[in-house]
Amino acid sequence: MSREQRAKIDALLRQPQSAETPSVEQIRAGFRALMAQMNVPAEIRTRSTTLGTRPAVLVEPATPPRPGTILYFHGGGWVYGSPETAMSLTANLVTRTGFRALSLDYRLAPEHPFPAAIEDTLNAYRALLDSGEDPSAIVFAGDSAGGGLTITTCLAARDAGLPLPAAIAAFSPGLDATRNGESIDTKAGIDPVFTREGLARTGAMYLAGQDPHQPLLSPAVYADLRGFPPILLQAGTNEMLLDDATRLAARARAAEVDVILDITADVPHVFQAFNGILEEADQALDRAALFLGQHLHNPNTGDAR
Amino acid sequence: MSREQRAKIDALLRQPQSAETPSVEQIRAGFRALMAQMNVPAEIRTRSTTLGTRPAVLVEPATPPRPGTILYFHGGGWVYGSPETAMSLTANLVTRTGFRALSLDYRLAPEHPFPAAIEDTLNAYRALLDSGEDPSAIVFAGDSAGGGLTITTCLAARDAGLPLPAAIAAFSPGLDATRNGESIDTKAGIDPVFTREGLARTGAMYLAGQDPHQPLLSPAVYADLRGFPPILLQAGTNEMLLDDATRLAARARAAEVDVILDITADVPHVFQAFNGILEEADQALDRAALFLGQHLHNPNTGDAR
Repeated sequence: MSREQRAKIDALLRQPQSAETPSVEQIRAGFRALMAQMNVPAEIRTRSTTLGTRPAVLVEPATPPRPGTILYFHGGGWVYGSPETAMSLTANLVTRTGFRALSLDYRLAPEHPFPAAIEDTLNAYRALLDSGEDPSAIVFAGDSAGGGLTITTCLAARDAGLPLPAAIAAFSPGLDATRNGESIDTKAGIDPVFTREGLARTGAMYLAGQDPHQPLLSPAVYADLRGFPPILLQAGTNEMLLDDATRLAARARAAEVDVILDITADVPHVFQAFNGILEEADQALDRAALFLGQHLHNPNTGDAR
Repeated sequence: MSREQRAKIDALLRQPQSAETPSVEQIRAGFRALMAQMNVPAEIRTRSTTLGTRPAVLVEPATPPRPGTILYFHGGGWVYGSPETAMSLTANLVTRTGFRALSLDYRLAPEHPFPAAIEDTLNAYRALLDSGEDPSAIVFAGDSAGGGLTITTCLAARDAGLPLPAAIAAFSPGLDATRNGESIDTKAGIDPVFTREGLARTGAMYLAGQDPHQPLLSPAVYADLRGFPPILLQAGTNEMLLDDATRLAARARAAEVDVILDITADVPHVFQAFNGILEEADQALDRAALFLGQHLHNPNTGDAR
């Protein structure tokens, strides 16, 4: 049955290709419509807020939250997406962990290319720290481009002399703007979401002519991860970005960082969004929730949760 | 604190080197004494039994077990160890999952070299199936050499036309009798447990002159893992066998098998045995228990547990 579920989801994602190249606004609207179909647990409360220099959405469990904050970065190629499009993922982490989440509406390309997004996520993290939240009570989580931001924001925080968060969880992270992973070629055609051309187009909007050969754009190739907190990377084998995750995991191991490389076969990019439909999605979210709970320390007791 | 715990355990494992090469009996007795220090949860019941052609120990939770069986293979380089020396690991999986375990006393080298151990583990699996246990209610778990047997027994089962178990969990598995992993060199001296000479000595006892370049001896290099159930591999960065795990994970991904490569930094071979002392050990066992519970299907309901 599960293999059937996987095939169904794969077909859903294979949108008919338009002959014309969609505009940025069309891409954004299409993604909004796609992600609006995803399951959002009812047992959450959301509220608009501000974090650092940007709007954010506070997502809280219906029951009193466990102390700790998930700082969430949505996906969308640094060009599209919002806290709303990632709400299924964010809310599922909240209900499964009992922690609150703050999901950041960082600035997008092409209006705001690199490093605007990282400036915003770093400002958000700094604002959380300034509000009195202990870094051991903060984890970064994100999907796709936002998964990339979990790593690059942590690099930027280290460079800025800030304490690092307690853990990082990334779903199908984008970690290589040079697009040199083996899976970029081997999974082309198998990946129902991306094409090389599509990735190049949004990638160029985010780069805006800047050199991709640097850690904040291609951490899977260039980042020194020494001193990083434990990292969980989840990806599917049906995605061109698979080797972004496998190469970052290898760099983390070499840097003596705890790292879990959690790969599910025959599933597409950010398959966790299909929770409630795809058994593997719910199981992956449960593993992510256990991981976050293991590393998010309770500031009131000093105990690991 | 945890970094201090890690250093303490590392020192404990660095036994003073004797000038003389220990006999097989001395190795066995030393390992028995070391592993007798490990924590075994009180809330289990054990009973001697027979499984296939070999003795085994049945380990049950004190509370009524959830339906399903962990078939456990102990470590010890295919030369030493027994169900008793692995009891801390086996019992912790039992208490954390609620499943029963059967830990097999397979034949050891040099008295019984390859493929004696795999004959015994395959016979044990076949006996479990013959007893009416559904393969979806069986998982293989093991540590070190026994972690290797989780993979090679599954290969042997596939070759024998048997249905495969529901999942495999391996702690610091030995998966390459050719000893060609990069970590064999890069972690020499860092690894407090193994030396190249020690590995060569017990390895030669198990090989007894046979060619290591074959899947049942070096699955990390030669095994075709297509059709395998989900695999969890846990290892530490302070071990020469680290790349046995990383290479098997790469082979699993290439074969479209679900695989979690779960690496903890600065911990030694089979660090999970230090549960109760080392926070990372308990956390790793909790992750293994969640993984096994996710994949061990309940034969009474057909639901994933």
